[in-house]
This record gives sequence, C-alpha cells and structure tokens, in this order.
Amino acid sequence: MAAIVTAAMLVIGDEILSGRTKDKNIGHLADVMTAVGIDLKEVRIVADDTAAIAGAVNALRAGHDYVFTTGGIGPTHDDITADAIAAAFGVPCRYDPPSYALLEAHYARRAMEFTEARRRMARMPEGAVPIDNPVSVAPGFRIGNVHVMAGVPQVFQAMIGNVLPTLRAGTKVLSLAIACPYGEGDIGTPLAAIQKAHPETSIGSYPRYVGQKFSTEIVVRGRSQDVIDAAGKEVEAMIEDIRKAKAIGENHSAEA
Amino acid sequence: MAAIVTAAMLVIGDEILSGRTKDKNIGHLADVMTAVGIDLKEVRIVADDTAAIAGAVNALRAGHDYVFTTGGIGPTHDDITADAIAAAFGVPCRYDPPSYALLEAHYARRAMEFTEARRRMARMPEGAVPIDNPVSVAPGFRIGNVHVMAGVPQVFQAMIGNVLPTLRAGTKVLSLAIACPYGEGDIGTPLAAIQKAHPETSIGSYPRYVGQKFSTEIVVRGRSQDVIDAAGKEVEAMIEDIRKAKAIGENHSAEA
Repeated sequence: MAAIVTAAMLVIGDEILSGRTKDKNIGHLADVMTAVGIDLKEVRIVADDTAAIAGAVNALRAGHDYVFTTGGIGPTHDDITADAIAAAFGVPCRYDPPSYALLEAHYARRAMEFTEARRRMARMPEGAVPIDNPVSVAPGFRIGNVHVMAGVPQVFQAMIGNVLPTLRAGTKVLSLAIACPYGEGDIGTPLAAIQKAHPETSIGSYPRYVGQKFSTEIVVRGRSQDVIDAAGKEVEAMIEDIRKAKAIGENHSAEA
Repeated sequence: MAAIVTAAMLVIGDEILSGRTKDKNIGHLADVMTAVGIDLKEVRIVADDTAAIAGAVNALRAGHDYVFTTGGIGPTHDDITADAIAAAFGVPCRYDPPSYALLEAHYARRAMEFTEARRRMARMPEGAVPIDNPVSVAPGFRIGNVHVMAGVPQVFQAMIGNVLPTLRAGTKVLSLAIACPYGEGDIGTPLAAIQKAHPETSIGSYPRYVGQKFSTEIVVRGRSQDVIDAAGKEVEAMIEDIRKAKAIGENHSAEA
C-alpha cells in the first residue's frame, strides 16, 4: 500500500498580498515535497496579522501531517510570526536560551550591538525546537507538526534542507508527461474515458496558449510505474487517433 | 474616512501544488488590487477536489467583499471548478444558454466539432453571469461576490480586465519605499518606535540578502500622502542617525 503523507504551507506577509514582493517559496516547497513523496495539499497566504496567522495555522495543522510557514520571523515590529504561532498553540512566547546564546556570540564576534531587535530573533513559543539557519544564523523553529521558517528565499531553502531529513516521507508520486499538440476541447472526452478506466492514476491536462493556438501537456500521475505506463499508452493512442481523424477531416486547427 | 474594500483569491489546481506549474496569477492580482485600492487579504491554493474548492470558496466569500478564483474551468475531466462552485452555493450546475450559443457559433465558424468536452465550458451554476473571454471565447462567470476565471495567465488577465470596471474600489493605499543600507537588526528598535508614533501608517521592512550582506527596503503605507510623508521623514532621519553611529563606532557591517 502506498503511504500518504500530506503537508500544507502558510505564507505570511503583507508584501506578498500587496504585490510588492513576488513569492518564490511556494514553487520551491512544491518541488521539494513532490521529490520526497509528500503531498502538498493546500497553501494559504495571510497578512501580518496575529488572528489571521493563528487561525490559519490551527486550521492547517489539524488537517495535515506537516505545516510549513515562511515569513515574519525577522527582527522588526512587523515580524509577529513567533507570537502568533505561540498564540495558536496557547503557550507563551519567550527567548529560547540556546538560540539567544548563539545570536549573542554571533554578534559579539562581529563587534555588533546585540540590539533588542536582534534579540527578538531568539524568541519562540515554549516547547519549540530551533531550526538551524546556515545562511544568517537567526533560527526558525518547529513546534508540534509546524515548521516556522524565514521568508527570504535563500534562508528558507537552507532551512527546508535542514528539515527534510526529519520528515516522514510518503511513497513518491511518479509522473509521465506527454506533449499533445491538440487543445483540451479535442482531448477532453476521450481523456475522461481513459481516466475512468485507470482510477489508480490521476490524469491532468495543462493547456498552453502560444501563437493563438492551444496545445496541452498531459500528465499521468500514480504511485507505481506499471499503472502509469498502462494509462500512458492509452494517451499516446488517443493522440494518434485524433491525428488520424483530423487528417481525414482536413481540419488542422489546434484550438481548444 | 477611507473606504476599505477587501478581496480574497482562490487558486485551483493540482499542478500548482505539485510544482509542475509555477503560479503567475497571484502576483498579477495583487498588483491589480493594490492599483485600484482593494485590499487583498488572503490567498488559498487548493487541489482539484470538490470539497476543498467548495469549502475554501464558502470561507472566503463570507469574509471578504470579493473573491477571485483561477483555474479548473476548461473542457477536461479534471476541470471541476464550475460544479464545485455550484455545490458551494447549493445550486445546480447547468448550461448557460448564451454561453452555449456563443461557443456553438464559435466552433461552427471554424468547422470544428462542438464536442461534449467543449460544451462543458458553457456550464456554470444557476444564477451565474458570464465573464467575457476575449482571448479564447470560453467564459468565466460571476455568482454572488465570487468571480470564477481561467488559470492560463493570458486569459486570467483579460478576464480580470473585464471584471475591474464592475468592482467597487476602495481608497487607494499609497506607499513610499525607502532604500535602507542597513539590516533589520539595526533598524528594528527605532523603526518600531516610528511605527508606534504613526499608527495611521503601516510600516513594513523587507530584508534583502545580496553578497552576504543584508539591506532593507522600508515601505510606508497609508491612505493619505500627508501621513506617509510625516512617517517617511522620520525613517530618513533614522537612517542618517544609524549612519552617524556606525561611522563613530567604525563598524560598517550591514549584517542583520
């Protein structure tokens, strides 16, 4: 039996919702989860608002094996993620002594003042475990099944790299991508029949619109190569059937 | 008094959650909403799953003035958005006669078969109003405060262009961006004091990490130029104060 492990992501930050910053972390986490066999089931983006963050975290951690958050763990007044996560778990937010010592030593080495703002980065909910930050020292943290990480992509990616070995991976979803020169309007009916005949696969079709013509990428997903190959063969045959029908009909349009 | 109008977005599609497709619509909607003075408050990404779509739509439409969805309105079996939205509103999903006629004529003109798959694109919940699609004809639709649009970016952008004139805009949020050569650890404490003294503004700081050094973009937002300018002057003075203090301390690090 395939092991199903699910995850959700929470992106925190006014700057994403205003359009000022374009998110780069969702696509990265999606790629990483797929690579290790964890199903990313939902993503939410919320503002720098305690109630919004806590509400989303509580909804997501109840419904999924893992939750990953990005953003709002820096040193400034709008970085309220640690407090909001503490509120979500109903525990106090306080300095983590090892993280405090790490940051204190880091700034001492650089002869930089360990300001109140910098000390803020050692705060995390009671019971949380730090997540190492090899890029810029200030840690993320894990509490329960929630992994709280930085929004700066370089730091987020490094933290996810540290977290991955601790996760229980599922059976990887394998996929087969088939380029189809026809639009979804041509393939929709026969493709639905193939999907129905192969319920152990998930067949998706992704339209592309280039040069005023639609084409499609058909993706067959499943947790064993055999089931994918069987459905894939039928998809190839379907494309060939459409080609023949169009040649007969002298209708070479690739419109949807 | 500033008029506050809020919006939420729902991105629908397995391909975004698997990482196969990188979303381009969130950033576009965020930019457009900011430009017209509507506050985008939340985004969710869910799978091609009726319960997930209907649950998210019902949560979002209850909490915001407008909801915008992208994805899942094409002709194939995995395009289940219209049915899921109908389920969310508790109404039947049926062919919209004007949209059916439009598509039928479109394919007749091109001598293309009006397949069952293509006819699917004329389906929408009872009570929905079509949203024109100038790119590829198949319409989106509006039901209540929910606007259902295509996931292909060119089509989504065209549909949003058609929807915008129908929306009630709020008082625009104006913003002032100030480049700051120092990291958040340097500015955190004084910036929090400026935010506290200017509660009618929202001051954000966005760290950048380039060449192993942090710098910051400080953004002052507000709904009148006067309040932004007053806070902005204090931010500029703060940066100058840090510069002087660092010159004295001979500490030129820009680390966080």
